[in-house]
Amino acid sequence: MIAAYWAAAEARDWDGFGRLLADDVVYEGPQTRERVRGREAYIRFNVEGFPGDWHLAVERIVAAQGQAASWIQSVGSNGAETGLCFFQLDDRGLIVRITDFWPEPYELPASRSHLVERY
Amino acid sequence: MIAAYWAAAEARDWDGFGRLLADDVVYEGPQTRERVRGREAYIRFNVEGFPGDWHLAVERIVAAQGQAASWIQSVGSNGAETGLCFFQLDDRGLIVRITDFWPEPYELPASRSHLVERY
Repeated sequence: MIAAYWAAAEARDWDGFGRLLADDVVYEGPQTRERVRGREAYIRFNVEGFPGDWHLAVERIVAAQGQAASWIQSVGSNGAETGLCFFQLDDRGLIVRITDFWPEPYELPASRSHLVERY
Repeated sequence: MIAAYWAAAEARDWDGFGRLLADDVVYEGPQTRERVRGREAYIRFNVEGFPGDWHLAVERIVAAQGQAASWIQSVGSNGAETGLCFFQLDDRGLIVRITDFWPEPYELPASRSHLVERY
């Protein structure tokens, strides 16, 4: 299910993408405190909110008992970015809740630099 | 397993925490490109790298087939922060790989502000 979600996004197959979503899907991005409610609004958010020639690659999907998490790489005009999503499925197996995070690079704090190696 | 990991960290029960880790556990923080190899080094990293009176609360754990993801809230001197971790377990069920992300708030891009509500 989650692999199909990302494959549909990568293919810009918005009909196929929409078939994976519950009517009342809710998307939240906690970093910006943005929210989108409903399948049509969420498809529009993806189509209009993220134009350009981005590509996605799935690094990891973990799924069990109506919940899932994914870790993807997106490459686009901002370079490579990491996307982390938590999903909930409804009792029909459709995606009903998406919580989306995009962590960005930051400076290693000096307070722990002696405890790690860099890569 | 992952719930026990976070409970041990919250309790500063580093012996119990260590018993959940493979000898050759590898921790990576992709945002800073920091890495820690081995159980003892990883315990030291947690004890010495993150002093202070932080507290953790688990928001979500998803686990299946030797893989897991967690979403936690940490509250400490930096205020509330969101931690997202992906785990791999070895064939004895011990944590052998940890990839840790700390997404931070950012400004909503104007390009999609008409497509979302704020919360």
